Amino acid sequence: MIRVAIVGYGNLGRGAEKALALAPDMRLAGVFTRRDPNTIGTAAPCYPYDTLQEHVDTIDVCIVCGSSSHDLKAQVPEVAARFHTVDSFDTHARASEYLALVDSAARPHGHVAIVAAGWDPGLFSLNRVMMEAVLPQGDTQTFWGRGISQGHGAAVREVPGVQDAVQYTIPKSDALQKARTGQGTALTTRDKHGRLCYVVAKAGADRTDIERRIKTMPHYFDAYDTQVVFVTQQELNLTHKAMPHAGHVIRTGHTTPDHKQVMEYALTLDFNPEFTASVLVACARAAYRMAQQGMAGAYTLLDVPPVLLSPTPREELIQGLL
Amino acid sequence: MIRVAIVGYGNLGRGAEKALALAPDMRLAGVFTRRDPNTIGTAAPCYPYDTLQEHVDTIDVCIVCGSSSHDLKAQVPEVAARFHTVDSFDTHARASEYLALVDSAARPHGHVAIVAAGWDPGLFSLNRVMMEAVLPQGDTQTFWGRGISQGHGAAVREVPGVQDAVQYTIPKSDALQKARTGQGTALTTRDKHGRLCYVVAKAGADRTDIERRIKTMPHYFDAYDTQVVFVTQQELNLTHKAMPHAGHVIRTGHTTPDHKQVMEYALTLDFNPEFTASVLVACARAAYRMAQQGMAGAYTLLDVPPVLLSPTPREELIQGLL
Repeated sequence: MIRVAIVGYGNLGRGAEKALALAPDMRLAGVFTRRDPNTIGTAAPCYPYDTLQEHVDTIDVCIVCGSSSHDLKAQVPEVAARFHTVDSFDTHARASEYLALVDSAARPHGHVAIVAAGWDPGLFSLNRVMMEAVLPQGDTQTFWGRGISQGHGAAVREVPGVQDAVQYTIPKSDALQKARTGQGTALTTRDKHGRLCYVVAKAGADRTDIERRIKTMPHYFDAYDTQVVFVTQQELNLTHKAMPHAGHVIRTGHTTPDHKQVMEYALTLDFNPEFTASVLVACARAAYRMAQQGMAGAYTLLDVPPVLLSPTPREELIQGLL
Repeated sequence: MIRVAIVGYGNLGRGAEKALALAPDMRLAGVFTRRDPNTIGTAAPCYPYDTLQEHVDTIDVCIVCGSSSHDLKAQVPEVAARFHTVDSFDTHARASEYLALVDSAARPHGHVAIVAAGWDPGLFSLNRVMMEAVLPQGDTQTFWGRGISQGHGAAVREVPGVQDAVQYTIPKSDALQKARTGQGTALTTRDKHGRLCYVVAKAGADRTDIERRIKTMPHYFDAYDTQVVFVTQQELNLTHKAMPHAGHVIRTGHTTPDHKQVMEYALTLDFNPEFTASVLVACARAAYRMAQQGMAGAYTLLDVPPVLLSPTPREELIQGLL
């Protein structure tokens, strides 16, 4: 049994706990938190984050479920010096720098760290790379949604007069069809996605002003067709506190001018954090095995032989799924 | 430049020639054929298959495009003793045995052989394995089509009174929807796919008898809803001699009883052999690189770190696509 610790116990950490329960070859060795371990509500053994290093003999891999890229940048190098690690660092633009940082922490200690796992970055990245390797001449389009975008929801909640809010990113079906038929290159940001905000206004707030501020917010909303719908707090809590998400990676390429070939990878998720956590758990298995094979350093899903993600022995996979 | 030879020059070999022309880091070193090299119609240097071993100094990887699993079983072990190889062996039930056979030929000579590449087996296998690793509790369904099934077409052409024929495998849209909503386990063979045969009858042949013989053919057609449409040879040649294909791998899984997560991988191909060949060319790159890293033996796409399939340097992939 691979002994896995969960570091950080938000939505992602709780998802990892559930995913580990479904892994036949892994065991939850403990949850580590910066909060009071008695208050976080897990039946698993739970310890203060500061005591993690005392558990080097009972943990193989740490799934670091820090709540932001900032947390991960501080925690993962620290943890990777003592354990194999997996994380879901998701600032695409900083991925190279982060990989180098974690590599320099993990490699001297013979540890394997799989970074930036999840679905995007993660499975979507992997598919973009493989699709472009197979069809070098073509166009790749990524769509997100219909689903909750945490960052955009947080931005709306910062608007004066807003009490609470949730934001859905919605791919436009026209654009999806264009991407599938090889007309994706001309699509603009506005063509591809719409944004739908459910907003609870504070008592007495100016709704027209709230709507205007949201729709003109640079980067987040001004380049999109944005719809703002005012709801009560009760309605928001009832209808919009789930965490669905979805997405598509679509590549159209030509092998010859007459022959178009289309590849598509799509996810439709009822609960985003549990799915991301499930990817992390499969990567924890791979990290452990890569280390067993003598590897050390920081890697991404692009570096992982897929067979290492599966609990099923290679021979059985080749007989059954190949 | 990686120097690649194409062994066998049917549809797949011609597809490999086109795919190599799109690879910035590879060069076609020659085409090898059992036919008369002067008659096969390529501008590339072309040699008799029997002279392949004389080219050990100018070829790194051979893409073996034998026309049947039987050919590959004889050729690939022979070729893998002298070169790195890639093939699209597609008898799923014999994959383990074939892998062992090629491994024992390649490994003692320090060669890497990637076997059973293409899309199914190949990219579809890879996706089945990865989806099940991420969502261990769930159901996977594979659909093929709408597209031409060579084996079924050949079976129809064996029916007495049939002059020519083409067979389309067609996934049923109801079944696709059921697979996507987690109701895939109950689907029967008949539920999932229909079969549509375009048949040219010989002059004076009994069409009722032909239709009955096709529809009752064991394994090939009796378990399916099969439609037979009689057409003229001219119509068949005009409309049904392209080689489109398509397919879906769909996994629905639960991370918790309340949370369904759906993963889908789909291909829509104008010309099947050129797409399969494009996968083989990416695998040829990976085989060469795996050998450079000191590996030897027979592998499948499940064993290949995806980064090795891409012509783009790892650092650039991490910056751009991760």
